[in-house]
Amino acid sequence: MIDLYHAEPVANSVKVLICCFEKGVDFASHYVNLLAFEQHDPAYTAINPDGIVPTLVHDGAVITESSVINEYLDDVFPDPPLKPADPVERARMRIWTKYIDDYFGPHGSRIGWHFLLHPLARKLGEDAMAERIAKIPMADRREKWATIAKQSFTPEQLDESRGYLAEGVRRLEALLRRSEWTAGASYSLSDIATYCVAPALPRLMPERVNAQATPRILEWLAAMNARPAVQKALAMPNKVPETLAAAGL
Amino acid sequence: MIDLYHAEPVANSVKVLICCFEKGVDFASHYVNLLAFEQHDPAYTAINPDGIVPTLVHDGAVITESSVINEYLDDVFPDPPLKPADPVERARMRIWTKYIDDYFGPHGSRIGWHFLLHPLARKLGEDAMAERIAKIPMADRREKWATIAKQSFTPEQLDESRGYLAEGVRRLEALLRRSEWTAGASYSLSDIATYCVAPALPRLMPERVNAQATPRILEWLAAMNARPAVQKALAMPNKVPETLAAAGL
Repeated sequence: MIDLYHAEPVANSVKVLICCFEKGVDFASHYVNLLAFEQHDPAYTAINPDGIVPTLVHDGAVITESSVINEYLDDVFPDPPLKPADPVERARMRIWTKYIDDYFGPHGSRIGWHFLLHPLARKLGEDAMAERIAKIPMADRREKWATIAKQSFTPEQLDESRGYLAEGVRRLEALLRRSEWTAGASYSLSDIATYCVAPALPRLMPERVNAQATPRILEWLAAMNARPAVQKALAMPNKVPETLAAAGL
Repeated sequence: MIDLYHAEPVANSVKVLICCFEKGVDFASHYVNLLAFEQHDPAYTAINPDGIVPTLVHDGAVITESSVINEYLDDVFPDPPLKPADPVERARMRIWTKYIDDYFGPHGSRIGWHFLLHPLARKLGEDAMAERIAKIPMADRREKWATIAKQSFTPEQLDESRGYLAEGVRRLEALLRRSEWTAGASYSLSDIATYCVAPALPRLMPERVNAQATPRILEWLAAMNARPAVQKALAMPNKVPETLAAAGL
């Protein structure tokens, strides 16, 4: 029995959803509404004390961290394999996944927080936000929400993030010019990981991600979007629009 | 043929050195003197363009990132195994390794930078540092060196890091009260990863890491130090004292 606690199909939630659908595993879906701060509710922190999504619970074992969850799913459900058989390609898969976890994903996320969460935090007001922030288990997340609740990120911080995204784009295009998929000849967990940030790139940086500058990224994105598992993941619930509308945004 | 580029046996270098010795693999050791900024020399960035250590080169394939290198070594040299056979324990190994990579290690490192590298940077002087900083490939490392070259980290940043270390200590003691090793019943890559930060803890925070407060951490440290592979790793070259002495520190 698998219970998956996840948000809408973007960022780290979409990574695990795609992997579940690729594997064809049955799972009970539990939507955690991040904009309603459900990830910090005692009902959820009883499962994941860090108060972050996604979390997988398999026969009572709690597995956290999307990249670890996907390795776990591949260990437990090896068919179809999502790790390359060649150890060097497998290492490339993990190096690129780590780059996404450490740089590409967080800096994409910072820009998303600025445009999406800063207006929401302003709308909710300082007192309501202070009450919510006090419930956040992890110090770095508390600091991120506190930043958003006040002035949001500075123009320098947003420029810094755009710089990291540009570097990520450069690296991704280079990887895809070397081989069909990010780790080598076969589709793998690092392609799934890349999907946590890549779909937003053509819209976020049209001057850098387009048919002339990054033909391989666009081909790869089309190949990803054509996968049934990706389509199933994208069809999962998304309460962001209704939550923003309810807040008057 | 394995070439390992590494610094003295602490932090991320000691992780990979221990793993090589546990596996009994033959490797050519290439010492990279971080305090002499050799990691940013063209000779090294030709191998690892990010200018960070360690790097493993195996039959021409370049593998970076210490946690990925250790998974690679375990994939290629499976005997003795350093990943638990049980997938849940294997996931615990990866969750804890990721926590070390993301929080425990970097915040320990920040304190090390403050006490070790800030005096060195001051001694070298602004012009020499500016020249060296200009050669650093990665933006976050450039920023870290620029911070060290000027005022070092603020008291608030150092307090923040001590807070993360205290949280890491709390988590590590809890893990070791649950099982003999960090991932479960068997010694694994996450014990090796923990050794990148743990040996300094009794000295850095004696009020938190001691026989009364954290008996399991001390037992585990003794068990680690008794391993021949750990002793061999600790016997590897360390040019920090002579480099500091040459700078008049």
